[in-house]
Amino acid sequence: MSDMLFQRIAIIGVGLLGGSIGLAVKSRGIASKVIGIGRNPERLELAMRMGAVDAVTTNLEEGCRDADLIILALPVKSIIDFLEPVARAASPGALVTDVGSTKASIVDHMQRYFDKQTVFIGSHPMAGSEKSGVEHSHADLYCDAVCYITVISSTPVEAVRRLTEFWQALGSRTMIVRPERHDQLVAALSHLPHFTAVALTKTVHESADDVNLLKSLVGNGFLGTSRIAEGHPGMWSDIAFDNQKNLCIYLDRIIDNLEEIKQLITNNDVESLTRLLNSVRQFRQEFNP
Amino acid sequence: MSDMLFQRIAIIGVGLLGGSIGLAVKSRGIASKVIGIGRNPERLELAMRMGAVDAVTTNLEEGCRDADLIILALPVKSIIDFLEPVARAASPGALVTDVGSTKASIVDHMQRYFDKQTVFIGSHPMAGSEKSGVEHSHADLYCDAVCYITVISSTPVEAVRRLTEFWQALGSRTMIVRPERHDQLVAALSHLPHFTAVALTKTVHESADDVNLLKSLVGNGFLGTSRIAEGHPGMWSDIAFDNQKNLCIYLDRIIDNLEEIKQLITNNDVESLTRLLNSVRQFRQEFNP
Repeated sequence: MSDMLFQRIAIIGVGLLGGSIGLAVKSRGIASKVIGIGRNPERLELAMRMGAVDAVTTNLEEGCRDADLIILALPVKSIIDFLEPVARAASPGALVTDVGSTKASIVDHMQRYFDKQTVFIGSHPMAGSEKSGVEHSHADLYCDAVCYITVISSTPVEAVRRLTEFWQALGSRTMIVRPERHDQLVAALSHLPHFTAVALTKTVHESADDVNLLKSLVGNGFLGTSRIAEGHPGMWSDIAFDNQKNLCIYLDRIIDNLEEIKQLITNNDVESLTRLLNSVRQFRQEFNP
Repeated sequence: MSDMLFQRIAIIGVGLLGGSIGLAVKSRGIASKVIGIGRNPERLELAMRMGAVDAVTTNLEEGCRDADLIILALPVKSIIDFLEPVARAASPGALVTDVGSTKASIVDHMQRYFDKQTVFIGSHPMAGSEKSGVEHSHADLYCDAVCYITVISSTPVEAVRRLTEFWQALGSRTMIVRPERHDQLVAALSHLPHFTAVALTKTVHESADDVNLLKSLVGNGFLGTSRIAEGHPGMWSDIAFDNQKNLCIYLDRIIDNLEEIKQLITNNDVESLTRLLNSVRQFRQEFNP
């Protein structure tokens, strides 16, 4: 028996995230065979040509057969839709995971279909970009990225160990949390920034009587702060509805903070505004290398 | 007579912006002599050692004497405070400009002190970063940056021509606008993004029961969107109060947009949210190279 971490990995959805897992697995020798499963033969063909997978199929049962690791590399809503068919297609003993940006509802749903024979553990590698598609995938996408691994009381510890080892082999720093805690943390660190960038971009868009003028004038202030608003609309719509409760709490809070800033400016309260800016600056500087 | 654009340039305030003007002027041979004027002898000494200026002084009259271009490289509020003494210290025929991030109030104030003999024209090069201090200055800071040059009906066109030539010699793209129009444009493209980043950072800060945890988890979403919140508190407080009216209009608009997004999420209105995300993405993509 080989000392590889897994023998056969099936990746459902070979886009930026799935393709990059394939490339990393191949280049790091993490598994002997990687199967790409998808709907679009052309995209699968491209994944093959890029060396992200060893074989491809549009047939879920066929692709999952004998895989000891199955990864759902799909948007959140599709992950939930695929839980039941994947649980049926998976061989006994297979470990199933995903890369979805929210975790509580996925883990909640999976409990109906998975058991101790075929284990599902939700993963969330904090990787990706405003780009999408297998053509943008690369073997280092997960290097130095944080990967959340979510556990509930029934999660078998041995499966957690193997999955942790898998993500670490891809270069990620793993973090074990409960699904609900995960969804709170990413609401603040990822989903709120995203929808803030969207609101900012919408506001600037609405101010634009002349887009060409704006384009000639724009600087790093707007560009850096709005970049993530280019993210995939369907993916981010999925995330927003799935993590509705946490995201709306933070949206309320940022609205309150914007109101507070507006009040300080309107009241000519130089001292309080400067104090606020100082405190924010100090906090933000803690994130610098 | 040399064919240099100016003979003697006095820079009041030798920080990131002033120091970078000095370095660019020297390296591009735009003037034969650059004088640095400031309060802090150590900072002036550093500017000398860096080659940003040929001579330094803490005496305004002395520094401005015989200069044919005087540049106020100070925060907005200090620029306003210095208008009167600079108008008195400037030699007849001198051209005076500034680098302030707002323009209407500066131009409004300058009209009390300047005339057709000693001309003031407000400039705003859109350069700089969250860094400050002469130690971060470099000769290419103004390359490819937009520089606004603001005119009113009494501005002499020959002075506009010379100032335009100056900023272009530093590598900037110049844009001639009225001061009020400038303040509207930067409110949307620069000041709103800044205070949005501040509100976002404050919101994440308030959510942080454990800063070290956040630091280990943070990804590009928050980091990119919040980077400018590190900007200098005093400078940004100045800007906010100076451009109060325009900024508050945009703060109201982004609050409305955040409320709208929250409503769509709360109402499970997938179609409208996806449409909004699509339209924002399309607009944002126009800014890509």
